[in-house]
Amino acid sequence: MDDRTEISLLMDFYGQLLTEKQRDILDQYYNMDYSLSEIADNQSTSRQAIHDLIKRCYKTLNDYEDKLSLLKNSIREEQVKKEIVDLLKEKNCDCSEIIKLLEEL
Amino acid sequence: MDDRTEISLLMDFYGQLLTEKQRDILDQYYNMDYSLSEIADNQSTSRQAIHDLIKRCYKTLNDYEDKLSLLKNSIREEQVKKEIVDLLKEKNCDCSEIIKLLEEL
Repeated sequence: MDDRTEISLLMDFYGQLLTEKQRDILDQYYNMDYSLSEIADNQSTSRQAIHDLIKRCYKTLNDYEDKLSLLKNSIREEQVKKEIVDLLKEKNCDCSEIIKLLEEL
Repeated sequence: MDDRTEISLLMDFYGQLLTEKQRDILDQYYNMDYSLSEIADNQSTSRQAIHDLIKRCYKTLNDYEDKLSLLKNSIREEQVKKEIVDLLKEKNCDCSEIIKLLEEL
């Protein structure tokens, strides 16, 4: 997984633990592909300040992941769900309802 | 769900975001059923200090739940897993492997 994908996923899991401003800036940088200078202009601050904020948030998100492992567990859970779907198909079980329920997990 | 059960579950989900000392004191109070005075004696501090720490941690854990909803989602996921197991049984699907995989979710 590349850094940009990883940080986007970490934001999905832990973004609510950041401030709205932090989320907004990470979103502009990692999802909307704005440059540091463009974000700095939008926020009326320096490129260095945005660089530092992104670096701090990156560390914060990784600290949360080190403690709660939500991303790691979610990757494992997706694999397990796939194994369940494969098994259902193998057994020719009429499984459309079950697959729908699995998607809720 | 009573308060004591709820706080125990919140500690399971978010305990790693507290300090070791906070976790230890909440564990003594909510899981081991020590009184405030007993914990205060063990920690060589006042009953009031322990009371305040527990109250702050209770709020912190609830703030995390308000933002991440891990407990709420986990309760929903347990219901969905039960629905899947019921459906498998209803369909007479040979499901022991699948149930074992579901337990990993």
